Amino acid sequence: MSHYWGMTTPKISVRDVGPRDGLQACKSIMSTDAKLAWIDAMVAAGVADIEVVSFVPPAMLPQMADAAVLVPEVRARHPGLHVATLAPNLRGAQAAAAAGAHSILVPVSASEAHSLSNVRRTRAEAVAEFAKIGAWARSLTAGPQLIAGIPTSFGCSLQGEVPEAEVVALAVQLVEAGAEIVTLADTLGYAHPSQVRRLVRAVRAEIGESRMGNLHLHDTMGSALANALAGLEAGITGFDAALGGLGGCPFAPGSVGNVNTEDLVFMLESEGFDTGIDLAALIAAREVLHAGLPDEALHGRVAAAGIPRTFHPARAR
Amino acid sequence: MSHYWGMTTPKISVRDVGPRDGLQACKSIMSTDAKLAWIDAMVAAGVADIEVVSFVPPAMLPQMADAAVLVPEVRARHPGLHVATLAPNLRGAQAAAAAGAHSILVPVSASEAHSLSNVRRTRAEAVAEFAKIGAWARSLTAGPQLIAGIPTSFGCSLQGEVPEAEVVALAVQLVEAGAEIVTLADTLGYAHPSQVRRLVRAVRAEIGESRMGNLHLHDTMGSALANALAGLEAGITGFDAALGGLGGCPFAPGSVGNVNTEDLVFMLESEGFDTGIDLAALIAAREVLHAGLPDEALHGRVAAAGIPRTFHPARAR
Repeated sequence: MSHYWGMTTPKISVRDVGPRDGLQACKSIMSTDAKLAWIDAMVAAGVADIEVVSFVPPAMLPQMADAAVLVPEVRARHPGLHVATLAPNLRGAQAAAAAGAHSILVPVSASEAHSLSNVRRTRAEAVAEFAKIGAWARSLTAGPQLIAGIPTSFGCSLQGEVPEAEVVALAVQLVEAGAEIVTLADTLGYAHPSQVRRLVRAVRAEIGESRMGNLHLHDTMGSALANALAGLEAGITGFDAALGGLGGCPFAPGSVGNVNTEDLVFMLESEGFDTGIDLAALIAAREVLHAGLPDEALHGRVAAAGIPRTFHPARAR
Repeated sequence: MSHYWGMTTPKISVRDVGPRDGLQACKSIMSTDAKLAWIDAMVAAGVADIEVVSFVPPAMLPQMADAAVLVPEVRARHPGLHVATLAPNLRGAQAAAAAGAHSILVPVSASEAHSLSNVRRTRAEAVAEFAKIGAWARSLTAGPQLIAGIPTSFGCSLQGEVPEAEVVALAVQLVEAGAEIVTLADTLGYAHPSQVRRLVRAVRAEIGESRMGNLHLHDTMGSALANALAGLEAGITGFDAALGGLGGCPFAPGSVGNVNTEDLVFMLESEGFDTGIDLAALIAAREVLHAGLPDEALHGRVAAAGIPRTFHPARAR
């Protein structure tokens, strides 16, 4: 039963971005086999969408050096899975498409300072690069979905505040440049709920419901789930998250982990949203992640406390 | 500017319950001087309401043995502070009043199993004891405010689910028995946002706006701030919280810390609610708490990350 839409068991999609956003924040390099075991365990728990890797130069992020091997292997093992990727430029996007990615997220920072730090381009240069990718993507007959990600949509550690009007204008520019979907990212975890509601509504009003992508939240200030709730209220239907709360942008000082997938699924299912994910199996997948990344601390309240006996998944009602 | 009420800088009150709810969960016994230093630091940060102690038999909670000394000392040091207390029975309530408490919260659990574990009484016996306290309180000319607390309002680790109709009926019973204020407590941290909205609205509809007290949240599942947001949406105007996220009920297995005061104040102020609390000074007060309780881990995201440059207190806008 939905409290929001008055229909039976509404669905919310959850994309686990741990293998991309999580690993890029880790010093240790995870083997391809360990990544595959982690992805297998999440898929077994019902996760239907995983951002598996970033197509960046290996010298920049050696954790992602296996991108071209990983994507086809994951596709072969999990035919039902949406295999999402990230690429910072045309070259990376072409490699992602060649590897068989279902979607490619290309980040264009709302903050000029973060853009320079993250992709070594001004925002205008990043938009121009995005337009090249958009033109190339349009030329494909059955290419991957092109997603524009907007890091620092809710504020930046380098620049400070990011004017909302600039984020809205950037979203429009990126759609004009070929983005099928726009995802707003709270890279630093600075957002607060009414800001989330306001910006999501403002962007959606300009680009349209069908182009509004996942909300990407980090939990720096502890308010990620409150921001997710605000996103739901503003009509968001998908979230990025990371098992164990891994993550953080290495080019955004002060950035900490993504919103924890287990805690997000607990809240969403409690609220009556079907995520398709089995919470107990998802918590069990932490063991597989830990085995592959033994030096990283995993976070998460529900995993620490155990699933309470009052919990009922949305589909069970 | 309020997003909720359309008036200038709405206020939300925050009661720090750490010296009571926090310490009862700690094995170490804090000296009266250390408690006073902690309370002093919170008051210096602008905290205007503190639950300083519980009037229980010292054999049960030796951490609270200084109750009769602490309350008059805190009142003498901080004339502007609301000095809140807890008492489980008439004897404790009378001692709290004699010591000069401004308010006394008497818990009556919604869960029968928690009632037996927490105060060794059935729920009916606890209501009868509350009625004795109510009758006594009415007989005083200028006595303390009598608050009925309802632990396990949102679920119980011992009993499981707690029917909402029972919580509503219990709230009505407690008002009839003399409660001036009713505070709903998510003792276990099992609540989810729509449950909070629903129960707060249902209870308020029966007992009236003016009797609706603080929402008392624990962060077991990471959703305390989302639940606080839901409470705000349902008209809650005050919260219990604990500096450093201390807390947990020793008689409710699985209970973890109260919602973190620093993170709550960050979210409330970001949302445009004036808490009267200086966030930087509040974070500094953690040092004083840590000095008095060196063996306890303090939690809190904002304190760990630092206050972001995008933060503006509500009054500064």
